[in-house]
Amino acid sequence: MSKQFDVLVIGGGPGGYVAAIRAAQLGFKVACCESNAYADPKGEPRLGGTCLNVGCIPSKALLHTSHLFEEAGHGFAAQGISVGTPEIDVPTMIGRKNAIVNQLTGGIKGLFKKNKVTLLNGHGSFVAQGAAGWQIKVGDAIVEATQVIIATGSMARHLPGIPVDNKIICDNAGALDLDAVPKKLVIIGAGVIGLEMGSVWRRLGSEVTILEALPEFLSMADVDVAKEAAKVFVKQGLNIQLGVQIGEAKPSKKGVSIAYTDKDGKAQNLEADRLIVSVGRIPYTNGLNAEAVGLKLDERGRIDVDGQCRTNLQGVWAVGDVVSGPMLAHKAMEEGVMVAELMAGQSGHCNFDTIPWVIYTSPEIAWVGKTEQQLKADGVACKVGKIPFAANGRALGMGDTTGFVKMLSDAKTDRILGVHIIGANASELISEAVVAMEFGAASEDLARICHAHPTLSEVVHEAALACDKRPLHF
Amino acid sequence: MSKQFDVLVIGGGPGGYVAAIRAAQLGFKVACCESNAYADPKGEPRLGGTCLNVGCIPSKALLHTSHLFEEAGHGFAAQGISVGTPEIDVPTMIGRKNAIVNQLTGGIKGLFKKNKVTLLNGHGSFVAQGAAGWQIKVGDAIVEATQVIIATGSMARHLPGIPVDNKIICDNAGALDLDAVPKKLVIIGAGVIGLEMGSVWRRLGSEVTILEALPEFLSMADVDVAKEAAKVFVKQGLNIQLGVQIGEAKPSKKGVSIAYTDKDGKAQNLEADRLIVSVGRIPYTNGLNAEAVGLKLDERGRIDVDGQCRTNLQGVWAVGDVVSGPMLAHKAMEEGVMVAELMAGQSGHCNFDTIPWVIYTSPEIAWVGKTEQQLKADGVACKVGKIPFAANGRALGMGDTTGFVKMLSDAKTDRILGVHIIGANASELISEAVVAMEFGAASEDLARICHAHPTLSEVVHEAALACDKRPLHF
Repeated sequence: MSKQFDVLVIGGGPGGYVAAIRAAQLGFKVACCESNAYADPKGEPRLGGTCLNVGCIPSKALLHTSHLFEEAGHGFAAQGISVGTPEIDVPTMIGRKNAIVNQLTGGIKGLFKKNKVTLLNGHGSFVAQGAAGWQIKVGDAIVEATQVIIATGSMARHLPGIPVDNKIICDNAGALDLDAVPKKLVIIGAGVIGLEMGSVWRRLGSEVTILEALPEFLSMADVDVAKEAAKVFVKQGLNIQLGVQIGEAKPSKKGVSIAYTDKDGKAQNLEADRLIVSVGRIPYTNGLNAEAVGLKLDERGRIDVDGQCRTNLQGVWAVGDVVSGPMLAHKAMEEGVMVAELMAGQSGHCNFDTIPWVIYTSPEIAWVGKTEQQLKADGVACKVGKIPFAANGRALGMGDTTGFVKMLSDAKTDRILGVHIIGANASELISEAVVAMEFGAASEDLARICHAHPTLSEVVHEAALACDKRPLHF
Repeated sequence: MSKQFDVLVIGGGPGGYVAAIRAAQLGFKVACCESNAYADPKGEPRLGGTCLNVGCIPSKALLHTSHLFEEAGHGFAAQGISVGTPEIDVPTMIGRKNAIVNQLTGGIKGLFKKNKVTLLNGHGSFVAQGAAGWQIKVGDAIVEATQVIIATGSMARHLPGIPVDNKIICDNAGALDLDAVPKKLVIIGAGVIGLEMGSVWRRLGSEVTILEALPEFLSMADVDVAKEAAKVFVKQGLNIQLGVQIGEAKPSKKGVSIAYTDKDGKAQNLEADRLIVSVGRIPYTNGLNAEAVGLKLDERGRIDVDGQCRTNLQGVWAVGDVVSGPMLAHKAMEEGVMVAELMAGQSGHCNFDTIPWVIYTSPEIAWVGKTEQQLKADGVACKVGKIPFAANGRALGMGDTTGFVKMLSDAKTDRILGVHIIGANASELISEAVVAMEFGAASEDLARICHAHPTLSEVVHEAALACDKRPLHF
């Protein structure tokens, strides 16, 4: 039995489901297959991928709850609010998180219905190229499609000698489902996931140690942002150790024992109740049977694509974490839309230079474009406008004046090359910078645009003014 | 004794102090005079005007505290956070607010020093035009300046028969300094100040009734936003009565007794502990001695200016609340910068079509450009993209999914004509809309720009997609 579609999308994460919806909007007959990777209680395929099920969305729910918990414990008194010592009920917190995830995964099913995308239950696996298009095995059925979009995403990288059971030793999935606040929590990897999860559990009372192999902290961020972040996180109580070499993790009486070598080459051992391994993610091509059809992967196991997400096979595309570029949900979505529009003969495009990055710690960290160290390395002379939130009325009103906005513009043309924000609401503030950069704005353009008072966005405005050394409020 | 300056700015509010700083940056010898309108304990002039002393900034501080108080009482349990019944200590809350105000007014003094602006203590009053420029009496001295910028702002409008003492019967100043949570609070006027102050005290436990003379609620906002706001505020417990006619307010045993006629013409009486009168503001020209030099006012008592803030007198400019246009701090600042740059022979400009509006209730309300009803009245056909926050992952994570983003774009050109937001963080989300509109963006432009996931700004993105009837997540 064979099913025939114009487009088959393999994988229902942000890249896949968005590609499927957009393709359907453009008139294609579309199916999207998803295997049950996230253990749906009913055994049904869960849409939304890593992001929605065990990534962006659940982590933001826990970050919000833990942020309020910390405010209640440490920020309320100065505002005149008295409450007893706040207590956290972890199962209720996790339950709320799960309800949000369930609502959203269900919501995507609704979007599939509305847009007439057929949802297929099962892992997609290449069989062959037939006369009527690509043959893909999905569950027990063979599906045929003229065009295939691979959106199989990524999976957590694990380390040798550290077996993840997602109970005592967790990756991103288990880190979101701890049943209690661990007294001592060790995290391997000071990247986005490590910092976000470390923040959640520290706020709720864990003593958190983060072990990072790299000698530099947050090396992908702008150097000033990384420096500020390190300062703030240490002050908050995260014990961050850089330049370590991770050894083995073994079960111990308390929970887990982690052996490592510190930056000075000294053998160390940490006892912890829980261990989270967040050392990056690897492209997920398991079971895709790429070799059966000669689908080309690159040296890092990613599917090899051109700037428009075309693979080496005619009519086969790939988007999201499984191809090169940052592993960000919104980057995958952009690629998904681009591919659907290119398939329809439209001029779909994806501007990889204006993909924003966000880390949802407190303060939040967000940026778009080049860092100062990248520009230096490229030999591009730039102007720097850097303004702290310290004197911003809204930040003071919110009782959170940490951080700054740093804008970089070309020394000759004044075109904005990068905007780097560490501070409250950075995730939302970055959007005006992305819009400005998409329009090729100069810092002077942003400097001449009215910003509502009192808002945090005024600091973006001041940073633009500061590129011309004429801030009004600093 | 006379003091000679290139530029004298009369009034140290947002329009005035910004004009003074920008003029000084451009090489002028600048003074700014400010009388002690806000009762500085040391009798020194307090900079920042209404906005900083008794407006935008202190209200945001109280809104933040009261928001957290409400979250603690009503939002925490669902997240698994238990605290006892929260209690508010009003003096501590007010004290924190005052500390913020003091820090910021002091900060502007620092900015004056840094930019070499001379601060003069006293009310500015025109004397005559002399050979060396305009003669202005400031305190006991006569100051001469080639150019004068009037930035005297506005004052609260009071009502006949309702004597404001700022203890029992308050305007915006007293409303920010109540010494306890009133059991019953009546507010006259459902504008920005009335709604913000009503929100603060309701959250802290007051039973709040808002009496509004107009038959329509929030008629300056987009019709859909006003409708949603009314629904939400009533659900929160604000008792809003429209179309009333206010009578007299008299001292009573309880505090104050307010007579009014309801929308059906029935005489009514309300007893309250406190009354807040927030029925708009009037331009402040008291003591300016405009008539001595023939400075022209318009029919509403505002200083008459052209589109570049020039008055009828050579070398005399006026900005902010004392001239036409919305009484918004950031509009005043824009005008202040424009005037300074025009004086310096630069091409200063102020785009009055892209001044954002914000109301800091919860949900926040913010907009830029035309409302749907304005476009209808103008006979402009438009596309509408309206997307609720209900399905937004970040909003769900924050536990606040109220409201929507509504984008209006020209039916023929697709140019964005207005963006209207009611929801969490609307004040910050509006900035990307302002930037887009300043660049003459089409809704398709915003639709094709990557928005970080998960953020509330994705709803702006979806609204842009919805203008073309192709939302991805709705």
